[in-house]
Formats: sequence, C-alpha cells, structure tokens
Amino acid sequence: MTAKPDDRNRPESFDDKYNAYKRVIDKFLDDNLPSSDVDGQRMLCEAMRYSVTAGGKRLRGVLALAVCELLGGDGAVVLPLAGAIEYIHAYSLVHDDLPCMDDDDFRRGKPSSHRVYGEGCAVLAGDALLNLAFETLLDGAVAAPPGYRFTEAAAYIAGAAGARGMAGGQAVDLYADIADEARLDCLHMLKTGRLFCAAILAPAICLGAGAEAYNALDGYGRAIGLAFQIKDDLLDTGNAEAVCERQNYAAITGVGHAEEKLYGCCAKAIECLSGFSQKADFLRGIAGFILETK
Amino acid sequence: MTAKPDDRNRPESFDDKYNAYKRVIDKFLDDNLPSSDVDGQRMLCEAMRYSVTAGGKRLRGVLALAVCELLGGDGAVVLPLAGAIEYIHAYSLVHDDLPCMDDDDFRRGKPSSHRVYGEGCAVLAGDALLNLAFETLLDGAVAAPPGYRFTEAAAYIAGAAGARGMAGGQAVDLYADIADEARLDCLHMLKTGRLFCAAILAPAICLGAGAEAYNALDGYGRAIGLAFQIKDDLLDTGNAEAVCERQNYAAITGVGHAEEKLYGCCAKAIECLSGFSQKADFLRGIAGFILETK
Repeated sequence: MTAKPDDRNRPESFDDKYNAYKRVIDKFLDDNLPSSDVDGQRMLCEAMRYSVTAGGKRLRGVLALAVCELLGGDGAVVLPLAGAIEYIHAYSLVHDDLPCMDDDDFRRGKPSSHRVYGEGCAVLAGDALLNLAFETLLDGAVAAPPGYRFTEAAAYIAGAAGARGMAGGQAVDLYADIADEARLDCLHMLKTGRLFCAAILAPAICLGAGAEAYNALDGYGRAIGLAFQIKDDLLDTGNAEAVCERQNYAAITGVGHAEEKLYGCCAKAIECLSGFSQKADFLRGIAGFILETK
Repeated sequence: MTAKPDDRNRPESFDDKYNAYKRVIDKFLDDNLPSSDVDGQRMLCEAMRYSVTAGGKRLRGVLALAVCELLGGDGAVVLPLAGAIEYIHAYSLVHDDLPCMDDDDFRRGKPSSHRVYGEGCAVLAGDALLNLAFETLLDGAVAAPPGYRFTEAAAYIAGAAGARGMAGGQAVDLYADIADEARLDCLHMLKTGRLFCAAILAPAICLGAGAEAYNALDGYGRAIGLAFQIKDDLLDTGNAEAVCERQNYAAITGVGHAEEKLYGCCAKAIECLSGFSQKADFLRGIAGFILETK
C-alpha cells in the first residue's frame, strides 16, 4: 500500500513560492489582454478581461514556471507558454458555461460571461481568448533566443488543447455515455489531463530536457491532472445539481473509491519525481495543495 | 475616372489555375482534419469535417498560394499558412451562424452546423477548427526549412484573426451602431479585410519579401478585401432578411454607390500590382473574379 501524501510533503515556503509564481502570471495575463476604443470591440475586450481576471488559482501556469525553475531554464522565456495555457483554460471555461454546454450562470461566485455580456459576446470572447493564447505563443516563438525549442513546445500545447485533447474531451463529456471508471479516466485524460501535461511538458520541451526527466515529468503530469479532476468531482458532490450534470468520479465510482484514487494519484505523482533532488519539492508540494483544495 | 476592370484582366488560364490551387488546398484541409473512434469526440470530428468540406471558394487560400508563386517561393512550405487561414475562415462561419450571433439556419445551401449537430457541438467544432488552424501553423513552423520566416508569418495571421482583427470586427458588426460609410469601412477592414490581408501578406513575410513588394501587396490586400465585402453585401441585397440583419454597404450607402465603390476597389487592387510583371496576372484576375461572383 502506498503512503498517503499529506502536509509533510509541502515545505514551509510553499505558499510564498506559489503566490510569487502566480503574481508573475497574473501580471503577464493582464499586460497582454487587448483593449479598444471602438464600439463593439470595446465590449469584446472587456468580456475577455472579465473572465481572465475573475480569479482562479493559475495552477497550470504555476506548474509551467515551477518546471522551468526545476530544469534551470529562464522563466522569462517560458512565461508565454504559461500565460498561453491560462488563456486557453480561461476560454474553455467561458464556452463550457454557455447555455448550450454546461449552462452555468455562475463561475467562481461571479455571474458567468454570457450572463453579463450576452451569449454572442461570450462565444466571441472565448474565441478571442483562444486566439490570444496562440498570438502569445507565436509572438513568444518569434522572440525566443536561439537554443530554446519554443516552437516545438507551443506545438505541443496546440495539440493538447484541440479536438485530440481538451476540446475532444469536452465533446466526450457532453455527448458520450460514460458508465464505468475506465471510460471516465479516458474522458478526463482528454478534458483535463492533456492541458495539465502540456503545462508540465511544454517547458521541458522548450528547455530540451533529456528523456529521463521528460518521462518522469510526463508521469507526474498525468497523475496530477487526474488528481485535480477527482478532487474537483469530490468538491462537486456537495452540489447535487453538479453531480447530475457532469460525469463525476464520486457519482460513478462512489465517494470512498474516489478518495482512495485521489490519494493514489498524489502518491504516484510524488513517486514520479523520485529522480529529482529537493529542487522538486515545490512540485511535490502541489500534490498536497490539490488534496487540500476546498 | 479610373478604368473599370472587367474580363479582359483575366487571362484564359485563370479558371484552370484557380482550380489547381483550390485542389491543393482542399486536399490539405481534408488530410489534416482529425478523426476519432471515441463517442462524442467522433461527433466533434464529424462536425469539423462537415463545415470544412461544405464547399466554399477557398479564395483566401488561393490568394496565399498565388502570392507565394509570384514571389518564387516553395508552395509546399507556404501551404500550411494557406490551410490555416481556411480553417480560421471555416470556424468563423460556424460561430457566426449560431443563434446567438447571426442566427443562420443555412450555409451554402446546406443546414448550418448547429442545425445538424446542435449548438453545443457547433461551438466546440468552431473552437476545435480555430485550434486546428494554430496546430497547423505551429507544426508548419517546426517543419519549415531554414531561411523561411514561417513563424513571423504565422504570428501575423494570429494577430489578424483575434480581438484586434476578425473577431473584433464581428463584435463591431454585432454590437456597434454603424450609421455611415467611414465606420462601415472600419468594420469591414477588421471583419473581412484583416484575414484577406493576412492571406496575401503572410506568404510575403514567410518568403522575406522586400519593402516595395510588401507594400504593394498590402495595398492590393486591403482593396481586394473591401471589394469582396462590398460584393458580398450587394449579393445579399436580393435577400431582404440579410440586409436587415447585417451592416450592409448597399443598405447604408445605396446600391449605386456600393457598385461604384466595388469597381473602384478592384481598379485600385490592380493598380497596386503595377510594379509586378505579368507573373501577377493571376492576382489581377482575382479582381475580375470577385466582380463576377454570383
């Protein structure tokens, strides 16, 4: 039986470090949002800003910056990868909340985009955020110094976000009949896992990580992504409506099994990092961070 | 008074050449669409294919390949730029047709995506097509041989498609009150013109065109994009509903003025190419092609 990870995996400085990464990402996201004085375009830009700055843990972006630091890379070069993934995440929430998708009126305690700006503008704001993610990646690729594999890293993110990744996962969530745990794992590997893995692997690709480090981080990313999703489902079980609407681990496998699986994923994530020194303690701490999220 | 361009600007071989370019693009678009055996994801991939293969002139992609040939570039290198722009165009039509946007039940005589697959899947199919465009661009950037400025060209396309370009123009179209010709020009420069210009300028950037050629093609692209939009509006004037729904040149400036302006734009486009040899005859012929579109 694997040991259950807990607070002891998180060094004292974890929260400070997390918040420092988060501030860098928040500033980048803010700095790169467009604005406009033209009627119509102004509302679109406001809607983009509303959703990007509506809160959120920036966990994916934080993971990207932490992997960069672990591998000794230049955070300024990797930052557009982290920022682009957060823009992609933001667009996906705006579109997922639409009445024709999950039909959620609230997001993080605030009215969702379509409730504030109308459905048409919410669709456009999501489109424009996805586009902005790729503007960010392509501008980053043009600006990256020689020796960085930035374009390869950006291409990996693109593959993880589209029909073969996150968007495909949302289609499975909406339209497939998920009756067992194996299919649920497959669904969430697409819908959540692929973008988590991209956050962790894109910096590794950009920095030219060797096969051993890459494979370790790949395993870590898969485990962390699944842990995040199970935790999210467990948090939703307090909300009867949410359980009915979505394909939910707690509902399909039972709360007890889901909790065991969550601990197993977090332990597995930490195990994958065994080849790294204490420099990887922050990434180890992320497992505890996910366990404790409320 | 400027001469009115007509059939005499189009060499005999124009249609053959157009169709040859179009076949190359059609094959590329078809080859790069994803497929899936997973429930839900399969429907998403089918919806993407439905809209991409629903017909269309591929005018933007054809322009990109023609500029590449004019500048003596390798069509195989530039092809992903042309294909990506067509995927972007396809996504924009899927989302524009949604009930919360222009609410069109038909597109090119076939039921629009949301009528066949439902609104949620149409939103996702548009998202996935936009994402596929950037997968195509980033894979193209990774594969481009040394000496090509493919990444810079791809970044230009990204800027033209987002909130500062096409998506911003759609927001202006939906939410701004357009009462005069100057504002209508501004709207259509964003909504239609920017992507037309990108189709023409991205190959020029990729191939490292000099300032003189670049500026000439920029002027050509602006004029051709505006001509295309005015022609589109004139074709819509037969459709009373369409005129009411959209900001329309014929409705706002009158049919006679719109027709004069259309001829003026086509003449201007040809004039911009005066520094090129007869190698540019195909691009000159595009002006006549737009005039004659039915």
